[in-house]
Amino acid sequence: MEPWQLTATAATALLQEGRLTAEALTRSCLERIAERDPVTKAWSYLDPLLAIRSAREVDKTYVRGVLHGLPLGVKDMIDTADMPTTHNSPIYQGLQQGRDAACVGIARGEGAVILGKTDTVEFAAGGRRALTRNPHDAARTPGGSSSGSAAAVADGMVPLAFGTQTGGSTIRPASFCGIYAMKPTHGVVNSEGAKRYSHTLDTIGWYARAPSDLRLVAEAFRLFGIEAPTGKTVQQLRIGVCQGPNWHLAEEESQNALLLAAKRLEAAGAIVEELALPQPFEGITEAQRVVLLGEGRGAFLQEYLQAHGTLHADFRDRVENFADITGPQLAGAYNLAGDCRKLWDALFPRFDAVLTPAAVGEAPLGRQDTGNPVFNSMWTLLHVPCIAIPATRGPHGMPVGVQIVGPRFGDAALLDVAAAVAPVIDAE
Amino acid sequence: MEPWQLTATAATALLQEGRLTAEALTRSCLERIAERDPVTKAWSYLDPLLAIRSAREVDKTYVRGVLHGLPLGVKDMIDTADMPTTHNSPIYQGLQQGRDAACVGIARGEGAVILGKTDTVEFAAGGRRALTRNPHDAARTPGGSSSGSAAAVADGMVPLAFGTQTGGSTIRPASFCGIYAMKPTHGVVNSEGAKRYSHTLDTIGWYARAPSDLRLVAEAFRLFGIEAPTGKTVQQLRIGVCQGPNWHLAEEESQNALLLAAKRLEAAGAIVEELALPQPFEGITEAQRVVLLGEGRGAFLQEYLQAHGTLHADFRDRVENFADITGPQLAGAYNLAGDCRKLWDALFPRFDAVLTPAAVGEAPLGRQDTGNPVFNSMWTLLHVPCIAIPATRGPHGMPVGVQIVGPRFGDAALLDVAAAVAPVIDAE
Repeated sequence: MEPWQLTATAATALLQEGRLTAEALTRSCLERIAERDPVTKAWSYLDPLLAIRSAREVDKTYVRGVLHGLPLGVKDMIDTADMPTTHNSPIYQGLQQGRDAACVGIARGEGAVILGKTDTVEFAAGGRRALTRNPHDAARTPGGSSSGSAAAVADGMVPLAFGTQTGGSTIRPASFCGIYAMKPTHGVVNSEGAKRYSHTLDTIGWYARAPSDLRLVAEAFRLFGIEAPTGKTVQQLRIGVCQGPNWHLAEEESQNALLLAAKRLEAAGAIVEELALPQPFEGITEAQRVVLLGEGRGAFLQEYLQAHGTLHADFRDRVENFADITGPQLAGAYNLAGDCRKLWDALFPRFDAVLTPAAVGEAPLGRQDTGNPVFNSMWTLLHVPCIAIPATRGPHGMPVGVQIVGPRFGDAALLDVAAAVAPVIDAE
Repeated sequence: MEPWQLTATAATALLQEGRLTAEALTRSCLERIAERDPVTKAWSYLDPLLAIRSAREVDKTYVRGVLHGLPLGVKDMIDTADMPTTHNSPIYQGLQQGRDAACVGIARGEGAVILGKTDTVEFAAGGRRALTRNPHDAARTPGGSSSGSAAAVADGMVPLAFGTQTGGSTIRPASFCGIYAMKPTHGVVNSEGAKRYSHTLDTIGWYARAPSDLRLVAEAFRLFGIEAPTGKTVQQLRIGVCQGPNWHLAEEESQNALLLAAKRLEAAGAIVEELALPQPFEGITEAQRVVLLGEGRGAFLQEYLQAHGTLHADFRDRVENFADITGPQLAGAYNLAGDCRKLWDALFPRFDAVLTPAAVGEAPLGRQDTGNPVFNSMWTLLHVPCIAIPATRGPHGMPVGVQIVGPRFGDAALLDVAAAVAPVIDAE
């Protein structure tokens, strides 16, 4: 087995004991990239010598952090002090910031090796697409906007990568690429240094190939309660199954994935119950749209004024408020979100987690359509933690995942649920 | 009259007609700084040649923005591409970012001349204080954390400056320094590129010496409804007078300022009514504390891990959660804030604005105590727009202001109210 094939958890065991070095693991990942990236095109910036130098520095540290020696990909709209951050925008080609984004600095502080920058949809929002292809079928999208991060982890190029989610940019690509991902409770991971689109929605997330790997990153961020695992087994879990207000938009393979995951959990001894959301949730998808467009209005004003000609029409439309979002409309969307957050949290601890679709279906063909975020956007607005879990394959043999969702600040308990249910759900 | 003495509005009239150049105005401000800053110490970075070069560039532009030629001070925890951003922290001495913060880029895009960086409380949050002194009495604080920005505008060094408010860091210094300030609705001004403390609270604000100057900046940010002034006169206004849940903490001079402002408005023909807040507001001050400490936990983790020894104990305490804030406590604070925001917005349009204290009293003696933010923190959590207006003097001859507050996204209408009531309230 080559080091690049190891999960972060498996690599960590070797790294902490000194049986594997950060440099050897980094070199192995770089070899895998050299082999695969001509097809997958996950990376927008990669300097192998810089990555190796960083790994050597990590190998020399006295204290071993929770991410000690683990190579990490960073979505190219998150700042890095030693690499450019282009946001996949012609405006920011060659931009070099003076400091790391908070999440990057924290990862480095815990010993991660920042491997390179992964391609992204422009500003993680619209406009230009990433060049990245789905590792399972190069004719298909890996999803977006965290295209390169999801594909790099799925393709074995790196065990961990940062994405972001404003609509469905972290969880959906995980489903399309057949890997695990976590979008934590909004705000618990400092998003400073990632390009702003919507302050209410933007959330740093991460990809991995195992649920225990997701937990390592959560430990680095010291999420509430992470130090006290619940240790529950599948037989001790009560899982809600939620089709949600957009079930009619799910393709057959996503409907199947949800029903199959529920059936597998029930067969493994979990208590599985259908969950119908109360009436206010009928408006939650529209509320997310209003927040996105209303806040997007101010998010790109800087570029609109200073680089009007090179700013994609998608963003000029936002600034010019083409959707005619008003202040009272935005306040109304915030109010509805607040009401729904309270209603949602009140479902716990009746449930340990809620199972719901992760994407509309398989990854679409081509690069332009990165997939519909409709099964993610409501959870993003609700600020709740979500974990994507691979479940099955669709009619074209592409991966189809599900996600489990918890209450706000229930991130640590949700990771415990993921550890228990993943071997049951991800069983193909 | 020297150019530095002009309000932004008065200077704009001359600049737009070409009867004053950005360079001449900038040079005049630099002369004023040379004269006054040895005492006031408002600036943490000032390169006169760079400022003059920037002014000359502005004088050469084809299109004149709404801030054309106006010198602007930037709080030293807001990024500037051509100047260092130290955050008043030993960790970031000499830090140079590759891009402007969003608010700085927007101001430049509208023709502002970025004059220099103004001293701040460390990370606008705690730890080290600014060196800045109150222009009205060098033995006293200008308030914090936007110490240098408030003092620079009050001392005639610059007509406009950016501050930020997480507790009371914009409005309180305005009251202490006898000037005008605006804290807009949370989120309408992109705070990207300003150091994060609390994503729920952090808000970019600005200082000026006239209410119409505040409006110029609001126009640059294209606040909702700014293009349609209401044109209401004082006689057409209905003003609520709100002592709020912390009235017992107000010094006599702040209580007097509120009553005096209300009396003046009534005498000028406004309808003035006492406003008692409903019961949930009793918990709002505590909710702001929980949000501040709960979110501050993640805000300084990067520095905690990477520069532990040089990080002030204030911030180590935050990261270590010395206040033992829990996830459910934080969710409860968010819920209460959401409830109160709805209750508050429902008071409008019954009122055009609500008048309430801006600070506990006069500026305290010394540099360490930058004043109590208790009359600001609840409004920051409520996300509502606030405008500080000078009202009277305290027992030591120091300025004492009041503030008017509107509903979320009522920024433009609140600016109209400020224009109408300022000549009545600010009458000494």
